[in-house]
Amino acid sequence: MRDVYVIGAGMTPFGELWNKSMREIFVDASLAAIQDAGVDHVDSLYVGAMSPGLFIGQEHLGAVVADFLGITPIAATRVESACASGGISFRQAFLEVASGASDIVLAGGVEKMTDGADVTEALATAADQEYEVYHGITFPGLYAMIARAHMHQFGTTREQLAAVAVKNHRNGMKNPNAQFRSELTLEQVMKSTMVADPLRLLDCSPVSDGGAAVIVASAEVASKLKRKNVKVTASAQASDTITLHDRKQLTTLDAVVRASEKAYKMASKKPGDINFAEVHDCFTIAEIVITEDLGFFEKGKGGEAVEKGLTARESGKIPINSSGGLKSKGHPVGATGIAQIIELYEQLSGRAGDRQVKAAKVGLAQNMGGSGASCVVHILEAT
Amino acid sequence: MRDVYVIGAGMTPFGELWNKSMREIFVDASLAAIQDAGVDHVDSLYVGAMSPGLFIGQEHLGAVVADFLGITPIAATRVESACASGGISFRQAFLEVASGASDIVLAGGVEKMTDGADVTEALATAADQEYEVYHGITFPGLYAMIARAHMHQFGTTREQLAAVAVKNHRNGMKNPNAQFRSELTLEQVMKSTMVADPLRLLDCSPVSDGGAAVIVASAEVASKLKRKNVKVTASAQASDTITLHDRKQLTTLDAVVRASEKAYKMASKKPGDINFAEVHDCFTIAEIVITEDLGFFEKGKGGEAVEKGLTARESGKIPINSSGGLKSKGHPVGATGIAQIIELYEQLSGRAGDRQVKAAKVGLAQNMGGSGASCVVHILEAT
Repeated sequence: MRDVYVIGAGMTPFGELWNKSMREIFVDASLAAIQDAGVDHVDSLYVGAMSPGLFIGQEHLGAVVADFLGITPIAATRVESACASGGISFRQAFLEVASGASDIVLAGGVEKMTDGADVTEALATAADQEYEVYHGITFPGLYAMIARAHMHQFGTTREQLAAVAVKNHRNGMKNPNAQFRSELTLEQVMKSTMVADPLRLLDCSPVSDGGAAVIVASAEVASKLKRKNVKVTASAQASDTITLHDRKQLTTLDAVVRASEKAYKMASKKPGDINFAEVHDCFTIAEIVITEDLGFFEKGKGGEAVEKGLTARESGKIPINSSGGLKSKGHPVGATGIAQIIELYEQLSGRAGDRQVKAAKVGLAQNMGGSGASCVVHILEAT
Repeated sequence: MRDVYVIGAGMTPFGELWNKSMREIFVDASLAAIQDAGVDHVDSLYVGAMSPGLFIGQEHLGAVVADFLGITPIAATRVESACASGGISFRQAFLEVASGASDIVLAGGVEKMTDGADVTEALATAADQEYEVYHGITFPGLYAMIARAHMHQFGTTREQLAAVAVKNHRNGMKNPNAQFRSELTLEQVMKSTMVADPLRLLDCSPVSDGGAAVIVASAEVASKLKRKNVKVTASAQASDTITLHDRKQLTTLDAVVRASEKAYKMASKKPGDINFAEVHDCFTIAEIVITEDLGFFEKGKGGEAVEKGLTARESGKIPINSSGGLKSKGHPVGATGIAQIIELYEQLSGRAGDRQVKAAKVGLAQNMGGSGASCVVHILEAT
């Protein structure tokens, strides 16, 4: 396999982008990435999107965005793995460049969720339609069961869940593209509207519109650019049972464990070698479980870690979600995995401004679909 | 890039599979492919599906099918490019094996279209929602405009359109997996119900359920099998404007031209070197335009070619759609591109039984999305 680099990035603000169509959002992000990389063409593109069919009645998104970017006849492919669609888009671009088939590939992601579709129903198609959704379950309920089990098994507290949201909002305040750039207090989270016990409104990532894109390139292309190179040293993906009830346990996400094990092996790294990470905090409990399953903290100690500030951007042992995470930055599902890569790229190239993580040399991005039935993990390193 | 081989194939019958769910259909096809290849595992899988969200309310299909195949935690990814989703699935598997990231990859495709969704509306999401569908156009109308333009510009006749359907039904009669295994006469096609002038019911491919899967592997894996090897010598993809009205002309599908040019170059082949082909005859006019755009016949002569029997399986210069094509075999949209690869594989390995094409050494598969906004072309060769 050839070496692969990220050479540019661009994204739109995440939020309720009522005056922009899905294709405009994707084009804005892509043009910013192309300009940032300083390339005059791309060989092909991938676009991660979870459900443009249900959200806005548009499938065949690869062709739509290639057309509106004005870059036909390039190969343009949509990939989907629910909320991991962006991470998968990046992985396919990585594989295409690694294979030698292309030298410069645009990996993007986009979602338009606020145009009037039934968002909860559309998102529920990431769960098992026959064995879960039919019986009325939606995602807050699934993650609430994970939270209850984690609290029961490890003594994780309601305050610890809230601490995730508080930290991520603090980080997001320094991210100009974040949907919610406002401080939260523990009390605000804990008094917010109940959604699915024990998860409250401010434990949940929001419904968002947004697009993100990065340019992935071969070593030869990257070496010609006069800037700090960021290398993709691992790309790994794993699956798990689609339904939560089929798992051996509720408190470990096996796809996260498996994908990260593969990624660590590929990059010749241990969890302790990772300086900072972007993880899939669709709900506060998810961040706690994931930081354990990635090996950053012992199983059951993720809640304590966030409470003690071990995941804080400024002074933590391992800053988690310096971008603000899904909770504060927003979660346009198809774009999320790419936005994580952008945060890694900006941190590793020393361009993260006010939210720069000190000594950021090795970053990890973990993107997840459904209640963890698919997971993709990437490791990027400054070179 | 590493060499890539097809080492096994399996598919369900195409048709109205009312007693099978989408996941069962995919599992049936995949197990048949795995058994045919004789492998004891696959490293990862791709599943092409156009719109399971709109057809049956299920996204996140990669994880669903990996789970029901019992092969978690492998990487499992859905890809979508409207009716080219199957071809894209095969291409991604090709790239993954070519890159060296995996040695054995399952490339599948599936669609469940007869479960009650509004199929015409769901299929229309492959066209431009904002500039085409909103104004009432659906696919029979788009292809009817292509047909009218081709008739006007080149004198293509109504009989020539019908000859495509007649030929493909004749081929499909010998395919045990075909949806329609019945002979058609020119008169039947030309007297069938008008759908969108000049296209009649029997010019249109049907609404179908079905699944198809192939096993793609490295040279090392392929060399261990005691059977005739089939090598993938080209994989190429191109895009075009999503809307038909934005094209320079209606009678040439530019993505087909571009993708096939790339494929011929990659395989070091000319159109005349191709012994037989599977092409995307979603409507009879499509086959005529495509056989011209692939370079098999001069522009404007595709209708005459089919009428003269040049594309007949038994004695034609270049047999087209020996499987029966989309018209007779059926068109479960996500599975179609993989079923084309299966026909190539069976012909090239001499296992096509009653419909064996003589001296089949080099085959081409052309799979297309929408009104031609995306196209993927593969060339496979017996070695």
